[in-house]
Amino acid sequence: MSRDLAPLSRDLAPLFDPVSVAVVGASDDPAKYGHAIASQALRAPHRRPIHLVNRRGGTVLGQSAAPSLTALGEPVGLVVVSVPAPVYEQTVEEALACGARAIVAVTAGFAETGAEGLARQRAVAEKVRAAGAVLVGPNCLGIADNTTELYLASDAFDLGGVALLSQSGNLALELQLAFAPHGLGFSRFVSLGNQSDVTLVDLVRDCARHDATKAIAVYAEDFGDGRAFAQAAATAGKPVVLLSAGRGAAAARSAASHTGALTTSAAIVAAACRDAGVELVRTPREMTAVLAAVAGGRRARGRRVAVFTDGGGHGVVAADAAEAAGFAVPELGPRVRERLAGQLWGPSALGNPVDLAGMGEQDPMSYAAVVRTLLDSDEIDAVLMTGYFGGYSSDSGGLGGATGTLGATELAAADSIARAVRASPKPVVAQSMYPDAPSCQNLQAAGIPVFAAIEDAARALAAVVVAEDAGAEGGAAALEPLPEPAEPMTDTGYYATRAVLAEAGLRFPASAEISTEAGVRAFARSTSGPFVLKALHLLHKSDAGGVALNLADEEALVAAHREMHARLSAPSYSVEQMADLGAGVELIVGVNRDPRFGPIAMVGLGGVFTEVLGDVVFALAPVSAARAETMLRDLRCAALLDGVRGRPAVDVAAAAKAIEQITRVAAVQYDLAEFEVNPLLALPSGALALDARAVPLVPPSLSDY
Amino acid sequence: MSRDLAPLSRDLAPLFDPVSVAVVGASDDPAKYGHAIASQALRAPHRRPIHLVNRRGGTVLGQSAAPSLTALGEPVGLVVVSVPAPVYEQTVEEALACGARAIVAVTAGFAETGAEGLARQRAVAEKVRAAGAVLVGPNCLGIADNTTELYLASDAFDLGGVALLSQSGNLALELQLAFAPHGLGFSRFVSLGNQSDVTLVDLVRDCARHDATKAIAVYAEDFGDGRAFAQAAATAGKPVVLLSAGRGAAAARSAASHTGALTTSAAIVAAACRDAGVELVRTPREMTAVLAAVAGGRRARGRRVAVFTDGGGHGVVAADAAEAAGFAVPELGPRVRERLAGQLWGPSALGNPVDLAGMGEQDPMSYAAVVRTLLDSDEIDAVLMTGYFGGYSSDSGGLGGATGTLGATELAAADSIARAVRASPKPVVAQSMYPDAPSCQNLQAAGIPVFAAIEDAARALAAVVVAEDAGAEGGAAALEPLPEPAEPMTDTGYYATRAVLAEAGLRFPASAEISTEAGVRAFARSTSGPFVLKALHLLHKSDAGGVALNLADEEALVAAHREMHARLSAPSYSVEQMADLGAGVELIVGVNRDPRFGPIAMVGLGGVFTEVLGDVVFALAPVSAARAETMLRDLRCAALLDGVRGRPAVDVAAAAKAIEQITRVAAVQYDLAEFEVNPLLALPSGALALDARAVPLVPPSLSDY
Repeated sequence: MSRDLAPLSRDLAPLFDPVSVAVVGASDDPAKYGHAIASQALRAPHRRPIHLVNRRGGTVLGQSAAPSLTALGEPVGLVVVSVPAPVYEQTVEEALACGARAIVAVTAGFAETGAEGLARQRAVAEKVRAAGAVLVGPNCLGIADNTTELYLASDAFDLGGVALLSQSGNLALELQLAFAPHGLGFSRFVSLGNQSDVTLVDLVRDCARHDATKAIAVYAEDFGDGRAFAQAAATAGKPVVLLSAGRGAAAARSAASHTGALTTSAAIVAAACRDAGVELVRTPREMTAVLAAVAGGRRARGRRVAVFTDGGGHGVVAADAAEAAGFAVPELGPRVRERLAGQLWGPSALGNPVDLAGMGEQDPMSYAAVVRTLLDSDEIDAVLMTGYFGGYSSDSGGLGGATGTLGATELAAADSIARAVRASPKPVVAQSMYPDAPSCQNLQAAGIPVFAAIEDAARALAAVVVAEDAGAEGGAAALEPLPEPAEPMTDTGYYATRAVLAEAGLRFPASAEISTEAGVRAFARSTSGPFVLKALHLLHKSDAGGVALNLADEEALVAAHREMHARLSAPSYSVEQMADLGAGVELIVGVNRDPRFGPIAMVGLGGVFTEVLGDVVFALAPVSAARAETMLRDLRCAALLDGVRGRPAVDVAAAAKAIEQITRVAAVQYDLAEFEVNPLLALPSGALALDARAVPLVPPSLSDY
Repeated sequence: MSRDLAPLSRDLAPLFDPVSVAVVGASDDPAKYGHAIASQALRAPHRRPIHLVNRRGGTVLGQSAAPSLTALGEPVGLVVVSVPAPVYEQTVEEALACGARAIVAVTAGFAETGAEGLARQRAVAEKVRAAGAVLVGPNCLGIADNTTELYLASDAFDLGGVALLSQSGNLALELQLAFAPHGLGFSRFVSLGNQSDVTLVDLVRDCARHDATKAIAVYAEDFGDGRAFAQAAATAGKPVVLLSAGRGAAAARSAASHTGALTTSAAIVAAACRDAGVELVRTPREMTAVLAAVAGGRRARGRRVAVFTDGGGHGVVAADAAEAAGFAVPELGPRVRERLAGQLWGPSALGNPVDLAGMGEQDPMSYAAVVRTLLDSDEIDAVLMTGYFGGYSSDSGGLGGATGTLGATELAAADSIARAVRASPKPVVAQSMYPDAPSCQNLQAAGIPVFAAIEDAARALAAVVVAEDAGAEGGAAALEPLPEPAEPMTDTGYYATRAVLAEAGLRFPASAEISTEAGVRAFARSTSGPFVLKALHLLHKSDAGGVALNLADEEALVAAHREMHARLSAPSYSVEQMADLGAGVELIVGVNRDPRFGPIAMVGLGGVFTEVLGDVVFALAPVSAARAETMLRDLRCAALLDGVRGRPAVDVAAAAKAIEQITRVAAVQYDLAEFEVNPLLALPSGALALDARAVPLVPPSLSDY
């Protein structure tokens, strides 16, 4: 994992705007990638020289093909390598010898086939870097930059503002199809392939600087340096949308087999997205909805939405969809209702949903009047429009089409809505039965995304809500850079671990490490019971019967020590004052080191809640106290913290501070696999750590993966 | 609520196949409903006489219009009433006088405007029933029966097997648009309107008998007799799909304003659907996906799905979508993998997802070979196909279209897949980037629904899984008819309620009702502590400090009784042996009487789980022990029942039996609003009721609503 917040970025200009291009493996055979890529490359011969190379020479796609790169007799800027795996190394070396500054490696058969392939692609990547060049792939399907007329993918991508970085070619094609109705297109497309040299992180950084790119869309199975990805996304200054599947066993199996990817658990990816301000989506359709919404540029400052419809059923369904997407659909107050009443007629509903109830047919301009009134109101943050609008101007709407009277008025209403939206900072998202109708197209042109399905519209709207805890710069306030590693803990025993935590400010009950019965008695006399006895320097002390709780007094403690020592002969023991568990709420706080995303904090409610409900949340560690508090509040059982059944509320601020202390200690220990305080007892005042555990990375070589 | 399992159904033949039709309010003005309906009606003049009536007489739609129904001078079978509200009564009366057997009342302005409108529509409905006729509406948008060429709605509906019963006209139009790409169409359409005479229940029963109707689709805001709806759906013998929004506050506000509907909570609707085997959906798109799947007719016997793709990314996303929809995507065993290996090539992935990885371009017939192998395997219950298939034969797929070589082979592959599916009882559902491609249309024709979006495909597949607890006749095994009312409980006090429950077999701890200290002492001496003391005949005994727990012995019990009696002067007290709460799991069991769906059972985990998590489930009461066990297993914290943290498992069968006893007692008490046992203590052996409460319906008139 990278610890650099803003490391020196690689120069990808030779990749996205090369002085010339050579396609090695160009072919007339339509079943070969070399055919598709060469065909695309030749779309812009005026922009830069395009050379085709085929080992048989002759003519390819009506153009003379050189038998080798060397035979071209001139240096080339970018080389597309679409050759069989056995000649991969020699082709890349020839490209470098011909002065190539960038290589796009389509050739497959490397990391996705196993360790030997991984070693081969690594060796090639090292040579490329040593030559000062960059390489995308291998096992990639090409790249395209619509802003520099660079077409090196198998398909043409429509021009637009989305940079798509994808580990799947077919999903890119599906996105292209889904984008079209929303007027979305691509600034760049990069098929990531096996990322042997140029990585997702390099590309996110470069697209962040790319003016023509308004949003970065990612489909990734392997995040490479996930922490650096999160940091690059958080500081991109433009929306980053990640399509990431659930990482169930089946998905991981599939990803591993097709790119040799090391997948990351869904919970960790979701935590990283949350902390980096990345919008996480699960399907191409969801990605399209989100991008259509963020392209509009407007943000909602809260989650109060007005649902506006011309048909009651649509209003009911839309209100439900909005609530399912996390919105409130509040009843409108008297002032707004009064203004609406002046614009509508008797049958109309004014409460929210606002329902024209036939007024649209009386006067299509009433649509615009309502949108204006709703946007003007300080009672709502966004408008969700749903129903028939579009049908009057649609040829399939049955009411005459764009040239009929109703159609023409609807077009005028669309223009009026567009003006109202342009004059407001609030977003409007629409669902229409006729999304392709001329008036809906006018809405889209004004930054109002229009969807055929209400759940897409609701999802889109959710994507433009500004996070409550977002800083001035957007949603990435929670992401801290990884701290420098501390001196490794040479001793990961219980008392050494406690000492590190205590130094960081964490509170523990009174305790002592003892190895004799005299020590046990001395501790008992120095304080009051009940006591806890723990055997030390044993693996799994609790499984082995190495923990005794609720020892009422000195005699009980001594008896437990005798029994336990006779059984376990542990080298030493910890004697501790027992905290009153009933006086607080048990939490579990852990930090695990993920090979991709680095230290990941887990916070949960302890005891039966962890066991039965798995009620835990994750964040990138270290975690600030403020972020720790949102983690605690995100627990399903968070209400427990506020006191239920007559118990007092616990000190959430103190618990959050303790979580910060624990995760800061863990985050700088790069040689630990796990670090855990369980339970952390949140009390009405303060918090107490009742146990602590540090587990070194074993075997240490795993950390190198 | 109806208690009749199969009541005499109303004869709706005069509605769906009338001898003649008259449209009163037929108009040349396109802004009026009378125009649209008359235009539609005239599409089939050969089928039956179609009369137009307009008070001005003259010519309407090129046909001579009578100034009144009476002026027609002949009896009419069905009358469409599309007149202003003030002349509604007189028009209906004239229709009845002219012999009408069915009336479709478009006129609005009744229940949706308040009590007066409700009274007016009720009075008219009574006259209609007295005349032996039937009436749909008022405030409806018409009906259509494509099987009898009866077109009395504002739009034409494509012919097909779905009967749509809808309280929204615009949603019906949206469904029509969404259905078209899936080849779905309508047998009948009924706009329910205010259901003043013909109800949703009447229509479900009639459509159940209607051979041309293969599935019944419902959008309802007001279920009328919800229990009868559930029973009609459960016994329909064909799929019933219900589009019902979440019944949040906003949705309820909207529904009330546009049809005067009494809405039902989402949890109760969901429980009724579960028990009646009704597929519940939230949006038109979801309804379309479900209907497309059930139209195929194949059912999955379990939730093991094989994901099959031609692109790794699609496989990952589809596996995730399948798991999100409740499926398992199990790794395939060696025998299936071996057979697949013989059909595919080196780069293909065989584990599940199965990924052609380029084999599709080598040989499109490999698609068919894989589907056949997967359907043959006893390791999976269904196949989810996803990705590019369709692109080879699509004009927009970039590979030549249906006439190219790959396209022609893909068409042949589609035919081969269709043959494999026809030969198997298992369902196949597909997602394709090119769902409109000729080869995908071939799949659809073979009963393989094809969707553009993977989440739709996964949802569709989930709709054809046979419920685990379905009886031989399908998913409705859990629905019991409402029992006859019992003699009302004249005394709903604590001991009277306990007595009714004890008679039904429920166990309680030893206890006595006492009113003197001597009685307290006598009870204490007759048994052992600890004890519980409860003040009786007070409202909210626990809030008033009328319950004392954990009274260790006779003296503690007496002291508590003195203190409580001094404070509350309750007429009497209950002294009880206190159960060891720690020895079991506290449950809460309640039955509430819903005005639409009758007695509804609620089962939850008691104590902090109910309070913090709201971990409760619902079912139509009474609940059999078998159904009660599934309710307990459906709780999020169900794992508690199996014992956690070293505690023993509880006797789930005994708890389920107790739930049956409680809900049977409550279900026959038609005069109770609520009935609750809280807690019901599930023990390692048996179950104990620790408290009981019965609340009469107050005011009683509510039960008449």
